Amino acid sequence: MTEPTQALAFAKSNHDRYLAEYKEFLSIPSISTLSEHKPDIQRAAEWVSRQMTGMGLKNVEVMPTAGHPAVYGEWLDAPGKPTVLVYGHYDVQPVDPLNEWVSPPFEPTVRGENIYARGASDMKGQVHAFLKALEALLKNGELAVNVKVLVEGEEEVGSLHLGVFMDKHQAKLKCDVALNADSSILGPDLPSIVYGLRGLAYFEIWVYGPAHDLHSGIFGGSIHNPAQALCELIAGMHDKDGRITLPGFYDKVRKLSDEERAELARVPRTDEEWRTTTGAPQLYGEKGFTTTERLGARPTLEVNGLYSGFIGEGSKTVLPAKAMAKISTRLIPEQDDEAVEAQLKEYMQKNAPPTVTWEVKNLVSSPAVLVRRDTEGVRAAQAALEATFGIKPVFKLEGGSVPVVSMVQTKLGVDSILLGFGLPDDNLHAPNEKQHLPTYYRGIETFIRFFAGVG
Amino acid sequence: MTEPTQALAFAKSNHDRYLAEYKEFLSIPSISTLSEHKPDIQRAAEWVSRQMTGMGLKNVEVMPTAGHPAVYGEWLDAPGKPTVLVYGHYDVQPVDPLNEWVSPPFEPTVRGENIYARGASDMKGQVHAFLKALEALLKNGELAVNVKVLVEGEEEVGSLHLGVFMDKHQAKLKCDVALNADSSILGPDLPSIVYGLRGLAYFEIWVYGPAHDLHSGIFGGSIHNPAQALCELIAGMHDKDGRITLPGFYDKVRKLSDEERAELARVPRTDEEWRTTTGAPQLYGEKGFTTTERLGARPTLEVNGLYSGFIGEGSKTVLPAKAMAKISTRLIPEQDDEAVEAQLKEYMQKNAPPTVTWEVKNLVSSPAVLVRRDTEGVRAAQAALEATFGIKPVFKLEGGSVPVVSMVQTKLGVDSILLGFGLPDDNLHAPNEKQHLPTYYRGIETFIRFFAGVG
Repeated sequence: MTEPTQALAFAKSNHDRYLAEYKEFLSIPSISTLSEHKPDIQRAAEWVSRQMTGMGLKNVEVMPTAGHPAVYGEWLDAPGKPTVLVYGHYDVQPVDPLNEWVSPPFEPTVRGENIYARGASDMKGQVHAFLKALEALLKNGELAVNVKVLVEGEEEVGSLHLGVFMDKHQAKLKCDVALNADSSILGPDLPSIVYGLRGLAYFEIWVYGPAHDLHSGIFGGSIHNPAQALCELIAGMHDKDGRITLPGFYDKVRKLSDEERAELARVPRTDEEWRTTTGAPQLYGEKGFTTTERLGARPTLEVNGLYSGFIGEGSKTVLPAKAMAKISTRLIPEQDDEAVEAQLKEYMQKNAPPTVTWEVKNLVSSPAVLVRRDTEGVRAAQAALEATFGIKPVFKLEGGSVPVVSMVQTKLGVDSILLGFGLPDDNLHAPNEKQHLPTYYRGIETFIRFFAGVG
Repeated sequence: MTEPTQALAFAKSNHDRYLAEYKEFLSIPSISTLSEHKPDIQRAAEWVSRQMTGMGLKNVEVMPTAGHPAVYGEWLDAPGKPTVLVYGHYDVQPVDPLNEWVSPPFEPTVRGENIYARGASDMKGQVHAFLKALEALLKNGELAVNVKVLVEGEEEVGSLHLGVFMDKHQAKLKCDVALNADSSILGPDLPSIVYGLRGLAYFEIWVYGPAHDLHSGIFGGSIHNPAQALCELIAGMHDKDGRITLPGFYDKVRKLSDEERAELARVPRTDEEWRTTTGAPQLYGEKGFTTTERLGARPTLEVNGLYSGFIGEGSKTVLPAKAMAKISTRLIPEQDDEAVEAQLKEYMQKNAPPTVTWEVKNLVSSPAVLVRRDTEGVRAAQAALEATFGIKPVFKLEGGSVPVVSMVQTKLGVDSILLGFGLPDDNLHAPNEKQHLPTYYRGIETFIRFFAGVG
């Protein structure tokens, strides 16, 4: 690999401008799941499209989908060279609980080496980093591969309409290599490449009792409280060994080979370090597996939300008419994400008592993926990381889910390289999300080296 | 008893004015538990005080407490006759879920024979009914007992400061008979008198896991989800027979005598009627007891609220840092309401896993009460009900709690007569609270006959 020296020097001398632009991007509250933020989604899409145009991409377009728009731009002036499809998303997660943010989520604030804002790490920081890498290469005449850039607006709601979009624009999105920057490394000095992602099946469960809220003194004791019934149902979803009890849930779970277990054991993170990162009083999980295995190589079921009755200040003696839980399962290869709905419904059928009624809504689902590690693209990513960080990257399995990775696999026939520069303690989806700025600048350098090396 | 014919005729001819005033009272959103409604609380207190002055009570005062004010007025011009202390409250419950109200909670609306508004039955309707009864007697010179009227503003938050208030004003509140109108009858043609009330101990339970919200994909499976842990703890609070598992909870529960069980069995309500009233798919409750017994004669534990994580529209893949439940127990004589906190804490100590931490806050507590049935006041209430409804009233045990009844017993040495004109399907504490208007008018007549007869 020839070092793209001019682009690297250009990037080094532009840190202040990068930070100013990055802040501008972060200050747009582009929350995709809340309909009141639709105008902000539009603003964020336009901001990305202006960036793309400014840096020299061609045929830049804000393209409609059945949901939020996707932004596309390309540079195809390297005939005979491979084409890299670069993926990112400009939408972000909701911000509640708002009162736990030290600085407001859409007023990006630098404290120490970090910048705090919703989307700082997931993934406006990563999108901005690859855009700046491409800009540095283009401005210095050092881009030597063809590039197609796609930045969507629905990742945080499960990339709901991206599959249809890819079907429709298959020719336009055709590529040899796919780079997905919605990822992280193990530590500021521990570069890593993700080769597997868990799938996701996300549900809302409603349990209904009386026809309407009742006085808990007058009616309490005579009917099954739906909040109690919901708690009983959720409590039963794990057995005492931390295993999930949905019928058939583990049937297709791939057994880890001894070799894989040995490789996962090399991830340099102790249980105590992990416990400190989470702040939990003790670790917990499925019996018979290490923390690293529980996190990437085993499926999980988590409660994401609970609601029933009166949750305001003080006391209200209500016997609620209904109770709701949001729960999601993370799936590993070869579990079928679409089968989980039937498993959950079978669980409810078997366990819900006749004293309540219930409903299960499937909100999102996406399969788990494993990506090939023996490709030229992955080798370019390895080399770029090693040149930038001075240390050989490790391969890891990731606990999160990125539905687009399996879409790109199925629809475009290409495995994604998962290369992004978040850190494990970035507070993704939580208050005080942050991005480590030195890692963001190193990310730009790594992307520059990757695009220079992949050709 | 001589019929107070003029007062009864006066009441009959004033229905339209009564309804207009009642609506005015209902349109004040005097929610005591929400601090933003403090000005409305003040307005409601002043409205009551103007009513008292207008009808001819003397020494009318809005009296401060450490919390919301109480309104007092008296008429002591019947020397040698007994003094009746009449109790009511002008505060109301919160209104959420607001979107389930057919008409807005503070825009009183008549549909059919009912008036719909928060507080219609609990208990602005009852307060207005006894005020109108006293007005009719005073305006027609037919009041022949001494009367002290006390209308407080903190019943819905457990009459927090009324005990201290009673201690301070013991001489002023001295009485021979106490009437508490915060009550209901069994049906529009089934008059009843309540002789026992359950106590209340209300708690907030917080379960804490990680230091802050985490990404459920990245961290899920490695720590104990506090929402799951809370569900496990709540699920364990009842055994499979519907009995409460807090250590020592049943120790002081008074066993029902065969005679009492026989009397409770006379309450003319079938399980199917009760099920229809609640709208639940099936009844549920402690094994070995009838529905009527479960409702008044056995203690209960109910979930009043549940909250954790993300409860907005759509999906957020968060592993929440904490989870909260509001739970309350209803107690029967001779359970100690203050002992329940220790029992609950002992339960948590024994059952909460070391993977989470927890906190229990006691919000409200009040003991259960039984009142004497062999007093002149109770006999006057019986006679007034029979004369108005044409049928002998039945005695019943009530599931709800009215802390003031035990306060009046302890501080003033008088048992309360529980006589009010709500109905079991009034949606107390729930959306679409209502008062049956024919029953409200009959309530005014009954109160007129009661005040005329008790002397």
